[in-house]
Amino acid sequence: MDTIKQYVQENKERFINELVDLLKIPSVSADSAYSQDVIDTANAVKASLEKAGCDFVELCETPGYPIVYGEKIIDPKLPTVLVYGHYDVQPADPIELWTSPPFEPVIKTTELHPDGAIFARGACDDKGQMYMHVKALEYMVQTNTLPCNVKFMIEGEEEVGSASLGWFVERNQEKLANDVILISDTGMISNTQPSITTGLRGLSYVEVEVTGPNRDLHSGLYGGAVANPINILAKMIASLHDENNHITIPGFYDKVQELSTEERAEMAKAPFSLENYKKALNIDDVYGETGYVTNERNSIRPTLDVNGIWGGYTGEGAKTVIASKAHAKISMRLVPNQDWKEITELFQKHFESIAPKAVKVVVKPHHGGQGYVTPIDSIGYQAAAKAYNDTFGVQPIPVRSGGSIPIVALFEKELKSKTILMGFGLDSDAIHSPNEHFGVFNYLKGIETIPLFYKYFTELSK
Amino acid sequence: MDTIKQYVQENKERFINELVDLLKIPSVSADSAYSQDVIDTANAVKASLEKAGCDFVELCETPGYPIVYGEKIIDPKLPTVLVYGHYDVQPADPIELWTSPPFEPVIKTTELHPDGAIFARGACDDKGQMYMHVKALEYMVQTNTLPCNVKFMIEGEEEVGSASLGWFVERNQEKLANDVILISDTGMISNTQPSITTGLRGLSYVEVEVTGPNRDLHSGLYGGAVANPINILAKMIASLHDENNHITIPGFYDKVQELSTEERAEMAKAPFSLENYKKALNIDDVYGETGYVTNERNSIRPTLDVNGIWGGYTGEGAKTVIASKAHAKISMRLVPNQDWKEITELFQKHFESIAPKAVKVVVKPHHGGQGYVTPIDSIGYQAAAKAYNDTFGVQPIPVRSGGSIPIVALFEKELKSKTILMGFGLDSDAIHSPNEHFGVFNYLKGIETIPLFYKYFTELSK
Repeated sequence: MDTIKQYVQENKERFINELVDLLKIPSVSADSAYSQDVIDTANAVKASLEKAGCDFVELCETPGYPIVYGEKIIDPKLPTVLVYGHYDVQPADPIELWTSPPFEPVIKTTELHPDGAIFARGACDDKGQMYMHVKALEYMVQTNTLPCNVKFMIEGEEEVGSASLGWFVERNQEKLANDVILISDTGMISNTQPSITTGLRGLSYVEVEVTGPNRDLHSGLYGGAVANPINILAKMIASLHDENNHITIPGFYDKVQELSTEERAEMAKAPFSLENYKKALNIDDVYGETGYVTNERNSIRPTLDVNGIWGGYTGEGAKTVIASKAHAKISMRLVPNQDWKEITELFQKHFESIAPKAVKVVVKPHHGGQGYVTPIDSIGYQAAAKAYNDTFGVQPIPVRSGGSIPIVALFEKELKSKTILMGFGLDSDAIHSPNEHFGVFNYLKGIETIPLFYKYFTELSK
Repeated sequence: MDTIKQYVQENKERFINELVDLLKIPSVSADSAYSQDVIDTANAVKASLEKAGCDFVELCETPGYPIVYGEKIIDPKLPTVLVYGHYDVQPADPIELWTSPPFEPVIKTTELHPDGAIFARGACDDKGQMYMHVKALEYMVQTNTLPCNVKFMIEGEEEVGSASLGWFVERNQEKLANDVILISDTGMISNTQPSITTGLRGLSYVEVEVTGPNRDLHSGLYGGAVANPINILAKMIASLHDENNHITIPGFYDKVQELSTEERAEMAKAPFSLENYKKALNIDDVYGETGYVTNERNSIRPTLDVNGIWGGYTGEGAKTVIASKAHAKISMRLVPNQDWKEITELFQKHFESIAPKAVKVVVKPHHGGQGYVTPIDSIGYQAAAKAYNDTFGVQPIPVRSGGSIPIVALFEKELKSKTILMGFGLDSDAIHSPNEHFGVFNYLKGIETIPLFYKYFTELSK
């Protein structure tokens, strides 16, 4: 199978240039100002699948952005791999913190990426990792080594909750029928120690609005006499955690599955340096739930974070005003067995209940998704592990990720198949942050590894 | 003195049109984007003083915006009144809540202003109230009834802390020498019950910045494991008040003067309807310090209000991010005897001390000022009371205002003279809010009343 290594080396420049072209389109799904760019990206992905060798490709209309569907069916009796990815990206702000424009990709070397990394919004999440699969297909078609059937489902709303994807999957179960779902939208421990994500956290994302007086007021004439919605919002947010950083929403932990001492010991084996972690983030101390270490706090434990807050005068200088309204965007990361809809209701009920009579509160659910766990003994996991082992020369470690890919649980429910999360990014790739990047080594290694997954999955399926 | 009534009636339209022209210039001192407009307004005020009959007018350069100085000295042996006002205005945002553009003045009638009110930013605070004094001078000059000397000092930085005014006053004590300072930058109880503000609150305005990780982070990969600066800021802000809404900053109340039962009983005589108050603000309940009623909470008690807060993703849709930084603008209203510089230091020390090790905190003082109390037995107060009594037919009530005019304390210190706060606005005029307005009745009543102050002050000074 060294032909793949050779093929990648020979086409390296082109693979990078094709990805760079894709990254130049600002497909920010959260901001309607970019809607045409999102559509343009869908068309670019469609074209790339046709070029790579799919027999059939189409843009499937949805209530939101279109889903790119492509397939190459070589023999209905052979297994079918369904590749999922997304072509939309996170907003780029705060734009001023980018060292190069987010949609003008550049390759720079970093300490962890001596061979260079592509810097651009979406480089790793998920255009780069999605495009590895397109190029892996190209290789298998060109060298006539595709061992099974393949389907692609690339969506454009992952960063805003995949609302249309759920709608689409429910209506196209036959079209999407498959034996395993393959996704590269996660990371691995390091370039020398690959890992496969076996657990994901769920998500509940809400927006809250606190209204005090019906208009902005002079803080001198009214200060001290009326509820200031910003002070109240701060108080309400603060009350959502207790002194041990446990979340105080009644019933929040009821369905949380505590890991056994053995499982926690197993997790603790993953290499981790608290000093390096703090150094990388330039923080003097970590912060989180009492009784759990960092790698547990961000993976097997649920969380509540304010993702955005605003209210009152935020411009230059000073304005002595009491705002009429204060707002916050709040998300909760959930663990397997917590139901995101139930948690959203618990939050809403609790948040409304703690509001003083002097203000009015509105809680608006944004979106959410369930947590998920992949069984290590599944054929899919085994095939992926062998593939990594071949290309990295090391057995991958199964890890729980703190991130959420809500639709993984949806896939299992609607399509009755397991998902394998073959991630090739690194935690340090700054996804969702300024200066997001994706290592050239990781990109090419992904293209090398994916065909091996097809090979082993087909063999193990016999 | 009915000639003044007549003069005002004859020139009513022109008085209104001249004020409207002044209000059209967006002299927002807090936002450097409007700096040329602020300068233009200074020049317009200068021209209006020359036209009204000052013998000498100049724009005095300062480290910031110029101060308009004007004077008419008829006899050095006669008393001198120094009129203070400001030509800058608050920012207009939130712009979308204005029913007419903030810098396109329109006259509309309201329940409290059946004769109509001028709607525009600065209509009441302070262009309208300042311009009453210019027109009162015009009347006295035209009718040769100016009984004493007059000086004008109109500044352009009141809404951002009057930094240059302090600088200017310290350097021009002789030029500004006077027997009483007259300011119309406050309100009165109602159009049938005038009042004179005898007490003002001081102010300490700070901006805080909480920094967590050195970059925005993915809330899934890091959520729960690092300090979220927004959650921490909310927690720190919440902790600044206890369950009785007392401020928790150590030493904050040390110099607060408790009023006697008699004084509080006297204050309670001012007409006030809690129901109307709540109705006007559309709130179900008031909110404030335990042990004090609304009219005490907003006047004789110090407060701490967040005037603005921002951090993380505040755009459309959802972004699952942990922000690197969170910010807030916080102001404290102080009562006489609290020193604003000392309070600012106490806040800074305390706020830094309550920050967890996982974040870094920066407290940046914006500006401040001392509280002030006007003696009711002073000649100035007596003259003002007689003037209101003549024009309204009712004895004015002395009231404590919750607002701050920091420079009043400065004047006493530097110029050794007392300040009389002859306000003609109403609390409902929405100063600092969208749809600020100033009653036509109030505007004209002010022009009528001011010359009477000059008359009585000169007589009582003999």
